[in-house]
Amino acid sequence: MIIVTRKNITNEDRARIEKRLTDLGFKLHTIVGVERLVIGAVGDKRLIDIHALESLPGVEQVVPILQPYKLASRDGKPEGTRVKVGKVEIGGDQLTIMAGPCAVENREQLMQAATGIAAAGAHILRGGAYKPRTSPYAFQGLQEEGLAILAEARAATGLPIITEVLNLPELETVAATADILQIGARNMQNFGLLRAVGQLRQPVLLKRGMSATVEEWLMSAEYILSEGNGQVILCERGIRTFETATRNTLDLSAVALAKTLTHLPVVVDPSHGTGKRALVAPMAKAAVIAGADGLILEVHPCPSEALSDGEQSLDLPEFTALMHDLKAVAELAGKRI
Amino acid sequence: MIIVTRKNITNEDRARIEKRLTDLGFKLHTIVGVERLVIGAVGDKRLIDIHALESLPGVEQVVPILQPYKLASRDGKPEGTRVKVGKVEIGGDQLTIMAGPCAVENREQLMQAATGIAAAGAHILRGGAYKPRTSPYAFQGLQEEGLAILAEARAATGLPIITEVLNLPELETVAATADILQIGARNMQNFGLLRAVGQLRQPVLLKRGMSATVEEWLMSAEYILSEGNGQVILCERGIRTFETATRNTLDLSAVALAKTLTHLPVVVDPSHGTGKRALVAPMAKAAVIAGADGLILEVHPCPSEALSDGEQSLDLPEFTALMHDLKAVAELAGKRI
Amino acid sequence: MIIVTRKNITNEDRARIEKRLTDLGFKLHTIVGVERLVIGAVGDKRLIDIHALESLPGVEQVVPILQPYKLASRDGKPEGTRVKVGKVEIGGDQLTIMAGPCAVENREQLMQAATGIAAAGAHILRGGAYKPRTSPYAFQGLQEEGLAILAEARAATGLPIITEVLNLPELETVAATADILQIGARNMQNFGLLRAVGQLRQPVLLKRGMSATVEEWLMSAEYILSEGNGQVILCERGIRTFETATRNTLDLSAVALAKTLTHLPVVVDPSHGTGKRALVAPMAKAAVIAGADGLILEVHPCPSEALSDGEQSLDLPEFTALMHDLKAVAELAGKRI
Amino acid sequence: MIIVTRKNITNEDRARIEKRLTDLGFKLHTIVGVERLVIGAVGDKRLIDIHALESLPGVEQVVPILQPYKLASRDGKPEGTRVKVGKVEIGGDQLTIMAGPCAVENREQLMQAATGIAAAGAHILRGGAYKPRTSPYAFQGLQEEGLAILAEARAATGLPIITEVLNLPELETVAATADILQIGARNMQNFGLLRAVGQLRQPVLLKRGMSATVEEWLMSAEYILSEGNGQVILCERGIRTFETATRNTLDLSAVALAKTLTHLPVVVDPSHGTGKRALVAPMAKAAVIAGADGLILEVHPCPSEALSDGEQSLDLPEFTALMHDLKAVAELAGKRI
Repeated sequence: MIIVTRKNITNEDRARIEKRLTDLGFKLHTIVGVERLVIGAVGDKRLIDIHALESLPGVEQVVPILQPYKLASRDGKPEGTRVKVGKVEIGGDQLTIMAGPCAVENREQLMQAATGIAAAGAHILRGGAYKPRTSPYAFQGLQEEGLAILAEARAATGLPIITEVLNLPELETVAATADILQIGARNMQNFGLLRAVGQLRQPVLLKRGMSATVEEWLMSAEYILSEGNGQVILCERGIRTFETATRNTLDLSAVALAKTLTHLPVVVDPSHGTGKRALVAPMAKAAVIAGADGLILEVHPCPSEALSDGEQSLDLPEFTALMHDLKAVAELAGKRI
Repeated sequence: MIIVTRKNITNEDRARIEKRLTDLGFKLHTIVGVERLVIGAVGDKRLIDIHALESLPGVEQVVPILQPYKLASRDGKPEGTRVKVGKVEIGGDQLTIMAGPCAVENREQLMQAATGIAAAGAHILRGGAYKPRTSPYAFQGLQEEGLAILAEARAATGLPIITEVLNLPELETVAATADILQIGARNMQNFGLLRAVGQLRQPVLLKRGMSATVEEWLMSAEYILSEGNGQVILCERGIRTFETATRNTLDLSAVALAKTLTHLPVVVDPSHGTGKRALVAPMAKAAVIAGADGLILEVHPCPSEALSDGEQSLDLPEFTALMHDLKAVAELAGKRI
Repeated sequence: MIIVTRKNITNEDRARIEKRLTDLGFKLHTIVGVERLVIGAVGDKRLIDIHALESLPGVEQVVPILQPYKLASRDGKPEGTRVKVGKVEIGGDQLTIMAGPCAVENREQLMQAATGIAAAGAHILRGGAYKPRTSPYAFQGLQEEGLAILAEARAATGLPIITEVLNLPELETVAATADILQIGARNMQNFGLLRAVGQLRQPVLLKRGMSATVEEWLMSAEYILSEGNGQVILCERGIRTFETATRNTLDLSAVALAKTLTHLPVVVDPSHGTGKRALVAPMAKAAVIAGADGLILEVHPCPSEALSDGEQSLDLPEFTALMHDLKAVAELAGKRI
Repeated sequence: MIIVTRKNITNEDRARIEKRLTDLGFKLHTIVGVERLVIGAVGDKRLIDIHALESLPGVEQVVPILQPYKLASRDGKPEGTRVKVGKVEIGGDQLTIMAGPCAVENREQLMQAATGIAAAGAHILRGGAYKPRTSPYAFQGLQEEGLAILAEARAATGLPIITEVLNLPELETVAATADILQIGARNMQNFGLLRAVGQLRQPVLLKRGMSATVEEWLMSAEYILSEGNGQVILCERGIRTFETATRNTLDLSAVALAKTLTHLPVVVDPSHGTGKRALVAPMAKAAVIAGADGLILEVHPCPSEALSDGEQSLDLPEFTALMHDLKAVAELAGKRI
C-alpha cells in the first residue's frame, strides 16, 4: 500500500501516520516528493480496511497495491476452476448452455420448455420458483410448488436444475431441489446469503450486481469462497447505464477481463443483458467469442403469454436455431457444445 | 396504458392484442396513426405487469400512464406522513438530526459519541451493529454486543436508536432494540426483508439503492406499506455515477422530486453521499434547503481511529458547529431543529 | 405523438392544448382515462420540438411515436448503405479493417505501421494528425506535417487513409488528404462540424459520444445526411459508466441494435473501447460476431514508446495474429476479410 | 508519480522502466514490496502524458501524485478569482444571478424577459442566439439577428449579456456582442474553441460536460487559462446518469468540491440540471448553500410558448418570487444579492 500525504504535512501528523502503519505491521519506505511524501507500506495486509487510513490527519490518498481478493484471484489457481454438476462441467472445454423460462408458471409450461431445450441440446434447465419483482403486486413465483415442478422436469429430462434463492429462510428448501443455486443481481451484496451458500457444498452462480464493479463482483465471490465453497460460477447480466434503448448494457469486456483476473468460470445472460429478443442471439454468440464459459438464456414455449420477461425470451424454434449456430461459434472459441 | 404497435401490423396480430387487453379488463380506444396504431387501454390495472405485453407479436412499445405505486403516492395523502419515534416526529416541522458512528466499535466510543451528539442537540442516535462490508475480511460489526451498547447509550442519553438490519434471521433481535430499523442501500431490493419489516409496526428508514431510480425506490417503499407498516422514512444517500472524485453522487434533485411524488418523509445522508468530510457540512445544509425532513450523519469521537468510514465522519466539534449552523438553515426552510 | 394530461385538468387547459396541437397541423383523438386524458395527435411532424409541449399547463407527459430520425432510419433503405473508399466497400460482405497508430508521431513510426498493417492485410490506414487531448500540455499531433506523412504512407502502401478532423478551420486541409474523415466522440454533437462534413461528398466516420444514447448518435448522423452526404459510417467506441477497470464500457449491444435501426454501416473500436491491450483481440472478435461491419484498431510498431494510448495499442505481431484469427470469425459472421 | 510493476518483473523490464523515467528527468526511489516493485518517480512533470508509461512491459499501474492542472488549482491563488463584467463581479461577495430565455425567439419575447428580470433584480441577461440542438430539424436560433436583439436589450436594461458561442467561425461575431461567452456542455472538450476563447480577454463561462469528471472540467478550464485568459467561470449543469425522472442529475457535491480544488468562481444551472420547473427553485437555493457563486436560470415570459426548454423555464412571477427568496439564502451563505 502507498500513502500519499497532503502538501506541507506537519512532523506531528507524519509521525502519527508512521506509527499507525508500523503498529499494523507494515515496513515503511518514505519517498520525499516535490510537494508531498509518498510512504510505501510493505506487507501483505489484505485484511486491513485501508480506506480507514484516509481519515488520518495529513493523509491525502491511499493506494492499494494488491488486489483485495485472494481466493478468487487467478494467481492462486492459474489452471482455472471447473464446476461439476452431474455430468456437466462448467469452466472446461464445453460451452455450457442453461436455458428455460424466467419463472416457472405451471407444470405444462415448464415441461414443454424443459423437453424442448433438452431436445435442442441444452445442458441445464433454468427456471425461477422465487422471483424478485420490483412491484409487490407482480407475480412472485410459485415457490415450493415451482420447485416440485422443476424436480419433475429434471426427472423427465435428466437435466440438472439452476434456480434462484432469494432469502435465507428458504435456502434449505431451495438447496434441496436445486443443482445450482443462483444468487441474483439484487443479492450480489446480500452478504448473509453469500456466507450461507458458502457453507454449503453445492455450486453457486453469482450474478453481477447492476451497478457492481468487477472488483466488487469478485469480492462477493470471495465471500462464498472464504466459507469453503469453491464451486462458484460468475454471471455477467448487464449493468445499468444511461442508455435506455436496451434494458441493461451487457458488459462483455468484463467477461474478457474477469477471465484474466479470476480462475472461476464466467457465464453470460444475454436475455436480461439486453432485454430485447432480437439482440439475444447476436449477443449470445459474441459472449462466447469474448471468452464466456457458458450462457444462461430465457426460453419460453410461448413468450407472448409469459408472466414475466416475455419481451426477452426466445421461443423454442428460436432457441433451437441458436443452439445450431452456437456449434460453430463454440468451436471457434476452442470449445465444444 | 397505451400500446403502440409496429408498422404494418397484421389484422391477426391486432386482434390478438385487443383480445388480450379486453380479457385483462381494459376498455380500448384505438387511434390510427400515420404509421402505427395507438391503443389506449383504459382501466386502473396497476397490478398487471404491463411489460409482459411487450412480447405480444406486433407490439412496439407499452407506455404506462399511472404511477406503479399507489400507497406511496402523494395523491393519496397530500398532507404528508409524520413518523413518530418517542417524542421525535419525522416529516413535520422539526428537522430531525440522526447522528453517530458508522459502526459501534466499543462501549467507550459509542458512549462518547452519544453524549456528544446529545449535547449538541441531535434527536436520534445512529450506529451500526451489523455492518455490510464489501470484503469478507473487513470488520463486520459487534452484532448483539453492539445492540446492547446502543441500548445502554439510549438509556444514558434518552435518544432513540436507529440501526441497520441486514438479514432476516437477526430481524427479531435487531427490532427488539432499535427504535428505527434501517434498510441499507444494498438491501433496497431485498424484497423478503422489506416484507418482513412491513409486518412489524416499527418505523423503517429505507435507503435508496446505489443505482435505483426514484420510481424503484418508491416501489420498495410500497412493499413495506403494502404489508401494513405505514411508518416509512426514505433516505437519499448518493447514487453511483462515472464521477470518482466523490464516493457517490448525492442526488438532491431526487429529494425535491420525491417530496412531490410521495407523502413519506425524506432524509439525506451526506456522509455516504459524498464520502469526504469537507463536503459533509455544505451538502447537509443544501439538503435541508432542497426539502429534506432530516439528516443522518456520521459522527465519531475520533474519526482517524474509526474502523470504517473515518474519512467521511465528523468529529464532535465539527458536528456541534454544524448543528449550530443548521438552526438558521432549518428556519429558512420553514423548519425548526 | 401522445399527450398525457395531468389529473383533474381544467377545461381551459384542455382547450389550450388542443388548440396548440391543431394549429401545428395534428389531427386529434382524445381518450378519457381513469384519471387523465390521453390525446393522440396524428400526423408526421418530426420537425416539431415536441418536448416544448411539455410546458403547456396541464400536460404531464409527451410520448413520441415516430423515431426522430428519418434519413438514418433502416425503414427507408432496408438493403443497407455501402460506403465506398477506393476499392474498399464498408457495409457489404467484406469485414473492413482500419488500423494504425493513435497519433502520427514521425515519418518512420508511421511508415513502419503502414507497411506492417498492409502486409497483415488491413484495408485502411488510421492515424491522427490533429489530436484531442484532455490536457493542454499533452502532445497535440503533428498537424499538417502529420497529414503529409499520412499521404506518403498511402502512396507507399496503396491504403486509403482515415484521420480525424477536430475543428472547422482545418476541415479543408484535412479533407484534402483524408479518404475518410473521422469525427471523434467529443465532437459527436459539434453540430457545426457535422453540417460542414455533411456538405462534403466524402465518407465520414462518426464516433458515438461517450455518454450518447443510440438515438442521439443516429440524430448526429441525421445532421450529416440532411446536408446531403450519405456516406456515413457509425463507430461504437465505448461509453462512460461507473466501471473503472476498463477505460470505457464497450457497448456491443448498441452495435446489434444500431444494425436494426439504421441502414448505415457500423464499425467498432475495441482499442478505446477497452483501453487494455489484453482485451482488444477478444472484443474485436466479439464485435464482428455481434454484427460489426468493420473494426478500427490502434496498432503501433512499438507501443511502449507511443506518445499516446500505448497501453491499448497492439504491436505488429499481435495485429498480424489477430488478422489471422479474424478470417474464421468473419466467415462465421457471413463476411470475408 | 508512482509506478507499480507486475509480479515477477524481469530485470530487463525493470531496467527499461528505470531508464525511461530517468531519461524523462525523474529521480527514482524504488521500494521492494511483497509481490511487486513500487517506483517513486520524483519531479514535477505535469507535462508528461504519464499514462503512456502504462504500456511499458512490466508496468501494472501508474499513479499520479500531482493534480494534472496547475493554473486552475486553488493552491496557486487561495484568495479566489473574481471575474468582472461591468459593475458585476462574479466570485466575490455578491451572488450573481444570470437569467433569461433559453433561446432568443423574437424581439418582443426577449425585451419582455429582459425588462422583467431586470425589475426582479437579476444581474446578467442570458439568451441563446446560436443553439445546439440534438435534431437538425429543431429551431437553431436566430443567430446574428438574435445577437442584435440581445444588444438592444442590454441598451434598454443596462444588463450585461451572456450568450453561447458554438463554432469557431462565429466566435468573432458573438464576442463582439457578448459580455460573457458561454461554452456549452457539448463543447467542454472542443479544444480548438477553448484555445480560441483563451486568446480573447473576455470572461468565459465553461459548462461541465454531461459526462465529464470534475478533473476533466478543470483541465478544460486549464486550456483557456493556459492561453492567457484568466476570466473563467465554471458552471455545473447536471450530469448524465441512469436516473430518467430528471433530465440530468444536478451534482451539487461537485460545486462544493470544485470550490476546494480551484480558485475559479462556480455557478449552477438548475434549469438544465433538473429539466423540471418545479425543481428549479429548491435546487437554485440548495446550490447557493452548497457554495455556488451564482446561478444561471431559464426565464421565459410565456414558458408554454417557448421554442425550446419551456418545461424547465420559470415565468416572470415565479422568477420574481425566487429572487425574493434568494435574498435570505444568499445572506445565510455569506453573500448578498
